[in-house]
Amino acid sequence: MSDCVFCRIVAGTAPAHRVYEDDIVCAFLDIRPITRGHTLVIPKRHATDLSELDAETGADLFRVGHRIARAVQGPEFGADGANLLINDGKAAFQTVGHVHLHVLPRNHGDKFRFAAGLLLRRPHGPAQVAAALRAALASRSEPDTG
Amino acid sequence: MSDCVFCRIVAGTAPAHRVYEDDIVCAFLDIRPITRGHTLVIPKRHATDLSELDAETGADLFRVGHRIARAVQGPEFGADGANLLINDGKAAFQTVGHVHLHVLPRNHGDKFRFAAGLLLRRPHGPAQVAAALRAALASRSEPDTG
Repeated sequence: MSDCVFCRIVAGTAPAHRVYEDDIVCAFLDIRPITRGHTLVIPKRHATDLSELDAETGADLFRVGHRIARAVQGPEFGADGANLLINDGKAAFQTVGHVHLHVLPRNHGDKFRFAAGLLLRRPHGPAQVAAALRAALASRSEPDTG
Repeated sequence: MSDCVFCRIVAGTAPAHRVYEDDIVCAFLDIRPITRGHTLVIPKRHATDLSELDAETGADLFRVGHRIARAVQGPEFGADGANLLINDGKAAFQTVGHVHLHVLPRNHGDKFRFAAGLLLRRPHGPAQVAAALRAALASRSEPDTG
């Protein structure tokens, strides 16, 4: 397990800007964000791909991704939309062998910034971005549906 | 509701090549597929975007997308990977105002075919593709986790 960087993040032995955490999943900023607030939601228990992920953990992963996608579109964070994306398998451009759901905040007219982000993938003040995301999530705490 | 094409597909008044259906969600081929087997999973009850979708229906949507993503990677359909994608909001390139989860079967080395598919978006014998997807799903029927 220790050669999986996402398992090390879960264990606290690799650094990450955390956005959300519960017993099943953990969410943190992508180290090479395409857009400001680009977050990864992962199962805490290692699963290389969707064939190794049980259905209920998948549902939990999505519940958290859904919450984050809604939170970034609130007034605190100010996105106008969001993409939720899982690349399952190397053929689908999965680059880290631990299931992860991307949440990409989007803004109207950001097509060129988005394209540039795809190429550059540079952080945008990650500590501040993570704090803003945590605040956006906290401000719309919902009943735990898990 | 009747001006929503996805609601009309659910009601059976607009045509679609169906892949899967239960009480909560419905899955059918994208009419302008990027890859062979490009499927959309939608909630039967209208929700324009993720802000209108309740958490449990979202989890159901994902459970079905997860199953389809696994099924297309079985021997019957033969994909090597899959992308799962939700575009939430016009800013995120959502084009139909009814939540839909894209499942895109992928193959090793299909980068150029994928790029061409993005531009062309042409069907590939939809009746046969839908039949192959239904067979792949049926061959790996799993306990209903919904």
